[in-house]
Amino acid sequence: MTTKRRLLLISNSTLHGGGYLEHCQEHIVKFLGKQVKRVLFVPYALHGRDDYAKIARQKFESLGYGLDSVHEAENPVEAVQNCQAIFIGGGNTFRLLKALYDNNLIPAIRKKVLEDGIPYIGSSAGTNVATITINTTNDMPIVYPPSLHALGLVPFNINPHYLDPDANSKHMGETREQRITQYHEEQDTPPVLAIREGCLLLVEGDKATLLGVTGARLFQRGKATSEHDPGHDFSFLLAHS
Amino acid sequence: MTTKRRLLLISNSTLHGGGYLEHCQEHIVKFLGKQVKRVLFVPYALHGRDDYAKIARQKFESLGYGLDSVHEAENPVEAVQNCQAIFIGGGNTFRLLKALYDNNLIPAIRKKVLEDGIPYIGSSAGTNVATITINTTNDMPIVYPPSLHALGLVPFNINPHYLDPDANSKHMGETREQRITQYHEEQDTPPVLAIREGCLLLVEGDKATLLGVTGARLFQRGKATSEHDPGHDFSFLLAHS
Ligand SMILES: [Ca+2]
Ligand SMILES: [Ca+2]
Repeated sequence: MTTKRRLLLISNSTLHGGGYLEHCQEHIVKFLGKQVKRVLFVPYALHGRDDYAKIARQKFESLGYGLDSVHEAENPVEAVQNCQAIFIGGGNTFRLLKALYDNNLIPAIRKKVLEDGIPYIGSSAGTNVATITINTTNDMPIVYPPSLHALGLVPFNINPHYLDPDANSKHMGETREQRITQYHEEQDTPPVLAIREGCLLLVEGDKATLLGVTGARLFQRGKATSEHDPGHDFSFLLAHS
Repeated sequence: MTTKRRLLLISNSTLHGGGYLEHCQEHIVKFLGKQVKRVLFVPYALHGRDDYAKIARQKFESLGYGLDSVHEAENPVEAVQNCQAIFIGGGNTFRLLKALYDNNLIPAIRKKVLEDGIPYIGSSAGTNVATITINTTNDMPIVYPPSLHALGLVPFNINPHYLDPDANSKHMGETREQRITQYHEEQDTPPVLAIREGCLLLVEGDKATLLGVTGARLFQRGKATSEHDPGHDFSFLLAHS
């Protein structure tokens, strides 16, 4: 079941104190390599698509790549069919997923990534939609997508911006750990890889590796939670396909 | 358009350092009054319904009320039709709303509250589902309800457990304020009353009053956000019906 898939799934676009995509720019350049000249950007997670595309364009141009935004394309499906690489940015995951459905991009992106093997970069909401469902997004459900099923480029869930419980907090809302545990109270729920800010997951075919400077926690239904450092091999999570 | 509606919408079941419903128990007793003898509890927001009903029963019995849990009823719709008061507890709002739909309780509860005038108490998720939609829940979408439309007992949204932005935080996920602002970027979105922990909204017919010890922020699409202390009259929010 080896696929051509190549994914770079980033927890967060901006790390505290740094610029947009600064903390992961070297990974992006290495991941895209020399063959990619232009990247197709998907700005749907934010309301101001023009402004968002401008910020992304500036960054990718500074790294030596051209950037087209799918919201400027006459035919978004054709834009996907013809692209060399895709970058889906963060924002609100519900808004993003709904727009992917509204524009009929789910099958187009799946084919391009899983069959044609073009590189896919996701950040935050763009990482959530790369997984099997958006059940473990942190975002507010400001719109109602036709399903929580997402691109399914990997057969598990990711929780980006993972936050450890704060022992000093007096706030009584659920901790992130409690929320993910509630997800696993439901039947047949897949593993959740919770990646802290500063952390990213590189997937190449059937191999998955944690990159970045912070670690990740793995939550699995009916099993103990485990902590993993950058460099960890998460390929076994791909075997559920 | 005066309705018989009587609602007590609580931000949070437990306030830091206190017991279950302790911070609002005097409001509950005053709200239910002397005529109500038994309360129908809806435990759907948590996975462990038996345990949850036990906790709620203990608390309501200590206040002098009997408690039946709807999950123990042979026919949940009939249990609603025959009840004297309803209390919907907190947990996961998506799970709660899905179970309300699955058990066909939405029209039954609406009729009981809006036409028959029985008292409705909601806490956290139970407050979210009392409003027009659950678009402004803080919870993780661990299940997919058939709609985000909720009981619609009031024509606006509530954000419970409201948290002010933390200027010292290095976490880059959206603040609560940013999340609600993103909601209002969508067309035709109703006001959002953001109630801090320790805060509750009393609705009697066409009158709404903020109670408790903390304040609330009111977010309205295209208008400046405003801050309000306990005692504030929010009746104008009911006029959108
Ligand atoms: Ca987000
Ligand atoms: Ca909750």
